Amino acid sequence: MIRFECDYATGAHPKVLDKLVETNLEECPGYGVDEHCQRAAALLKELCQAPEANVHFLVGGTQTNTTVIAAALRPHQGAVCAHTGHINVHETGAIEATGHKVLTIPGKDGKITAQQIADLCQAHYDDPSVEHTVQPGMVYLSHPTELGTLYTRAELEEIRKVADRYRLTVFVDGARLVYGLAAGDVTLDNLARLTDVFYLGGTKAGTLFGEAVVITNEALNSDFRYAIKQHGGMLAKGRLLGVQFEALLEDGLYEEIGKKAVAQAMRLRDAFLSKGCPMLFPSPTNQLFPVLPDRVLQSLEDKYSCCFWEKTDEDHTAVRFCTTWSTQDEDIDALIHDLNAL
Amino acid sequence: MIRFECDYATGAHPKVLDKLVETNLEECPGYGVDEHCQRAAALLKELCQAPEANVHFLVGGTQTNTTVIAAALRPHQGAVCAHTGHINVHETGAIEATGHKVLTIPGKDGKITAQQIADLCQAHYDDPSVEHTVQPGMVYLSHPTELGTLYTRAELEEIRKVADRYRLTVFVDGARLVYGLAAGDVTLDNLARLTDVFYLGGTKAGTLFGEAVVITNEALNSDFRYAIKQHGGMLAKGRLLGVQFEALLEDGLYEEIGKKAVAQAMRLRDAFLSKGCPMLFPSPTNQLFPVLPDRVLQSLEDKYSCCFWEKTDEDHTAVRFCTTWSTQDEDIDALIHDLNAL
Amino acid sequence: MIRFECDYATGAHPKVLDKLVETNLEECPGYGVDEHCQRAAALLKELCQAPEANVHFLVGGTQTNTTVIAAALRPHQGAVCAHTGHINVHETGAIEATGHKVLTIPGKDGKITAQQIADLCQAHYDDPSVEHTVQPGMVYLSHPTELGTLYTRAELEEIRKVADRYRLTVFVDGARLVYGLAAGDVTLDNLARLTDVFYLGGTKAGTLFGEAVVITNEALNSDFRYAIKQHGGMLAKGRLLGVQFEALLEDGLYEEIGKKAVAQAMRLRDAFLSKGCPMLFPSPTNQLFPVLPDRVLQSLEDKYSCCFWEKTDEDHTAVRFCTTWSTQDEDIDALIHDLNAL
Amino acid sequence: MIRFECDYATGAHPKVLDKLVETNLEECPGYGVDEHCQRAAALLKELCQAPEANVHFLVGGTQTNTTVIAAALRPHQGAVCAHTGHINVHETGAIEATGHKVLTIPGKDGKITAQQIADLCQAHYDDPSVEHTVQPGMVYLSHPTELGTLYTRAELEEIRKVADRYRLTVFVDGARLVYGLAAGDVTLDNLARLTDVFYLGGTKAGTLFGEAVVITNEALNSDFRYAIKQHGGMLAKGRLLGVQFEALLEDGLYEEIGKKAVAQAMRLRDAFLSKGCPMLFPSPTNQLFPVLPDRVLQSLEDKYSCCFWEKTDEDHTAVRFCTTWSTQDEDIDALIHDLNAL
Repeated sequence: MIRFECDYATGAHPKVLDKLVETNLEECPGYGVDEHCQRAAALLKELCQAPEANVHFLVGGTQTNTTVIAAALRPHQGAVCAHTGHINVHETGAIEATGHKVLTIPGKDGKITAQQIADLCQAHYDDPSVEHTVQPGMVYLSHPTELGTLYTRAELEEIRKVADRYRLTVFVDGARLVYGLAAGDVTLDNLARLTDVFYLGGTKAGTLFGEAVVITNEALNSDFRYAIKQHGGMLAKGRLLGVQFEALLEDGLYEEIGKKAVAQAMRLRDAFLSKGCPMLFPSPTNQLFPVLPDRVLQSLEDKYSCCFWEKTDEDHTAVRFCTTWSTQDEDIDALIHDLNAL
Repeated sequence: MIRFECDYATGAHPKVLDKLVETNLEECPGYGVDEHCQRAAALLKELCQAPEANVHFLVGGTQTNTTVIAAALRPHQGAVCAHTGHINVHETGAIEATGHKVLTIPGKDGKITAQQIADLCQAHYDDPSVEHTVQPGMVYLSHPTELGTLYTRAELEEIRKVADRYRLTVFVDGARLVYGLAAGDVTLDNLARLTDVFYLGGTKAGTLFGEAVVITNEALNSDFRYAIKQHGGMLAKGRLLGVQFEALLEDGLYEEIGKKAVAQAMRLRDAFLSKGCPMLFPSPTNQLFPVLPDRVLQSLEDKYSCCFWEKTDEDHTAVRFCTTWSTQDEDIDALIHDLNAL
Repeated sequence: MIRFECDYATGAHPKVLDKLVETNLEECPGYGVDEHCQRAAALLKELCQAPEANVHFLVGGTQTNTTVIAAALRPHQGAVCAHTGHINVHETGAIEATGHKVLTIPGKDGKITAQQIADLCQAHYDDPSVEHTVQPGMVYLSHPTELGTLYTRAELEEIRKVADRYRLTVFVDGARLVYGLAAGDVTLDNLARLTDVFYLGGTKAGTLFGEAVVITNEALNSDFRYAIKQHGGMLAKGRLLGVQFEALLEDGLYEEIGKKAVAQAMRLRDAFLSKGCPMLFPSPTNQLFPVLPDRVLQSLEDKYSCCFWEKTDEDHTAVRFCTTWSTQDEDIDALIHDLNAL
Repeated sequence: MIRFECDYATGAHPKVLDKLVETNLEECPGYGVDEHCQRAAALLKELCQAPEANVHFLVGGTQTNTTVIAAALRPHQGAVCAHTGHINVHETGAIEATGHKVLTIPGKDGKITAQQIADLCQAHYDDPSVEHTVQPGMVYLSHPTELGTLYTRAELEEIRKVADRYRLTVFVDGARLVYGLAAGDVTLDNLARLTDVFYLGGTKAGTLFGEAVVITNEALNSDFRYAIKQHGGMLAKGRLLGVQFEALLEDGLYEEIGKKAVAQAMRLRDAFLSKGCPMLFPSPTNQLFPVLPDRVLQSLEDKYSCCFWEKTDEDHTAVRFCTTWSTQDEDIDALIHDLNAL
């Protein structure tokens, strides 16, 4: 079976694993204050061109989202996001468990617009019973979105303006950011400039686990280590996060991983399109959502795994194919070959 | 510098690391439902002689404590523990952040007694304004305690009886359990029988990270995976936990690690005692708390690191020395030699 | 100015106020265990034909909703409701502040159907990542709804069946229940039989404040007084609640209030309809939502107050008119007269 | 039976009740923005000599404590208080239910000192694992304390200095403040100057219910109405709070009530002391804690009710006697007479 159903099925990229093995017997202080964490943080701040930023390393995505949102919001505030946003759908109510409502906007292909955010805020402040409703306090964006799509730099600039007008923290969930950096026009330094906080995900990009959080908003950063500890994100052997992100960030490994997986995905996309299979969402990144005739899907299933998304009509099914650091070019070749042979 | 200040300064035991390397390219389903997790769970249930138990793997200790306590208690209930209990002191209020008060009892050497627990519960139910106060809903014990001491099997039997009388969940935090198993009379099957839930810690015992939770209370176990996800403990590459615990549990590696580190600690203890340095707490496990004349401490500090605990008088200081899987016998030899030479 | 904008603009019904004055100097035990509370509870249980039920008195609606929902749900569960449900819109995230997500269904005229609830639950349990999403644990219904509409007995029977199938607590918010009892086919004993918990609101029905909660689910009732205290709902002078509900429940005062206000509203509705002003929602209770030409609205505004609801087109506005215990028949006469004169 | 067991056994002071009756049919906007609330707020700000302060009215004490503390603290912070503090003991974990730990200091007669607070804070910031522990964010004082004792103005000045040094919000719970104003040297304007937020309790001082919160810290005040609503404290008929506090504050009724009850209590105290019955706590306010020989207690119990506090030895019991607005001088006379006759 050749697997395309997710981007976290294998372990770590060999360069990441090697570095873990190499440093295994080093004795380091715990909880993320070691030299590996410091060096990884310095590398990331440099890539962000943000010397004043602060970098923290957490273990996983839900944990990171929860920690950031709980630290950023006051109790009567909520986080605005697309209805498809990860925090709204797939975190078992982790945000609400910290006391905050998720305020949803109907997204288009996983994205929301500056105008929609402004409208939601304006409607809130126009309500004569304003204090009976949850105050928007943050805008949460995923980049790439859960549907593989990307914001443009111009769109982020607009969202930043609206956020400033309505005093919203801007938080970008970058669980798959390496693929976004490889495909769109948004760079790390754009994110550092246009958000209050964002993260670069390791788990889906070649580390065993780990998310690198970049905070440029000083008020949010103050006491952030207390928040990490309270949310269970302060790894005793914190050096594991530093070591892995050193490997990912030095010598451009994160870029290499992102570019290769996106190129593979685009080859696959073109193959589907040329067979007349449209995409459910216009994803330019490592997640593809082709709509396949059921007989095509059945003939592929013996050899290739993908992830069921939804039935689009009686005879067609949308599925998700993912590429990642461990995807082999030969596997893409094989799938394209078999597709063309159908 | 020879380091004794904590038991999480190095990476993973070589056998654990080897297994991570070996399995790195395997493609596994995510979130802890893979074959490695299943095999590790089976091994642990067998060691516990508890075929009906359920085993879950989480990443860290604070996360595990929070997840278990929030899942076990109703909103008006609190967790009873020693005032030195980890959940009361060193988790940045993580338990309270889930809505629950920690109800403290003055411990002796880190331990609380069945009688103290019964007294606290009885005082609660005798209060005419009973519903104005937090209902005890759980007893939280650390084994070994934060001060290295151990409960006896007989003590746990008594606590179980009190817990049954007052309908308390019994939860044992086993962050350092491998050292407790090596030193006391409490076995894994005792724990499975006498608690509702306990965990065997990996982080301080040879894995990179990870805690293996054993739940024997069926009501608590139902929907526990939702709780793990909500608290950010469901690792995408969950297989990493399974793989590491397989290595730790098969061929008795966890026992070997525990015994060796405890033997090293006992040699060190005897050396301190024979030099007239008493122990602040009577720990039979891998954490020692010698009270040293300050001039002794100063003369050791150039070569050996330990952890400041407290000043006991003007000229004496209590410190903590830890051994762990990576502690070398030669380092113990050297320290004993230098001690004797003073 | 004749006021129709809400149903809580005046104080208490004279019979309620008289009883407060009469009993003012009685010395009673605090916190709701006095004889007035006991008698009011007995009256309500009798009206519900539910001798085994438990009755508790709380101060306000948001408090009651929060207390009940937090007591009923486990941490990974959410409350299902119409998107217009009070807990979703107008409680400043109070439910989320207790840790629970509100799971919304698009309502029709404020109501949701058994089938919609079943579909939401089925979709949850069919999801292969079931534990990554919030488990539906309760269905919350308002009766009357926020839009004045009512469930029929048959609809509640269907919802009860779905709730049993998916193990949902059924909770009915009866902030305006006296008006629902006066207008539809659902009786107090139906509610006691078909829900796990519901409440009869006093605030909008003739008391100064107070909500009477009826719990028929024994597990939910256990320790409910702890929940009331924790959520700030245990009034020191709890007798005030007992006294007011005695007045409301004895001699059928609650029925009298409900019937009169509903009759007034229906007269008003007919007057609007006969002038060609349709209703935005088909409310048979004390809240009306006529859609008025803006010139009609302007000519009424000098003399009558109502509540803006929404612009329906360029020239028309939907507004809310409420009747309540203190609405005078002469005021209805005057408004109808002025309407007809337009 | 003549009752002294608590200060909330009767309804409202006649002047308060009269004003409720008088204004009963007025039509007011809901939720505390009516003219009565405005006038009561203006009266209180004038008494506090704090024209810039903000005044909010809530229903009860637990609700007020919860609302203020949750609004003031960031998630990783806790509230420092005496171990006897109401929020630590008698609110069913309501503070923890909002996510915050209560950090206790052993009190003396219910009070804590500036030095103790400073020591706790300093120990926190000196801890090398500072972010593993809860950050002190507020000091909570009761005045009078739960044991009837009072802070002096000088003590509050010292506490304010410490609070400024460690960036703590100062919050004074004034559930029984009218009795404190009548007995000590702390005035309303002192409180407005030395705290960030305090409240003047109505429930135990002549209203049916209600607490008037005075906030001088602008950051805390911003969006405070959202917090009130979220915590269920925004009464629909908010005018009830305004009306009652108007009655209490105009013409010095609160002072009259406080002085009379304190004078009665002091007469009673002198009578106990002259019979050789010492006080368990040196309360100068309306709560007395005499230690009585059990035979004295038994001979009083037929005619006078009081509240059991604790057994002090085999033959003696400490009890609580309270006076309040409705205590009759003749009842005090009778008790003193009977005491002297023993």
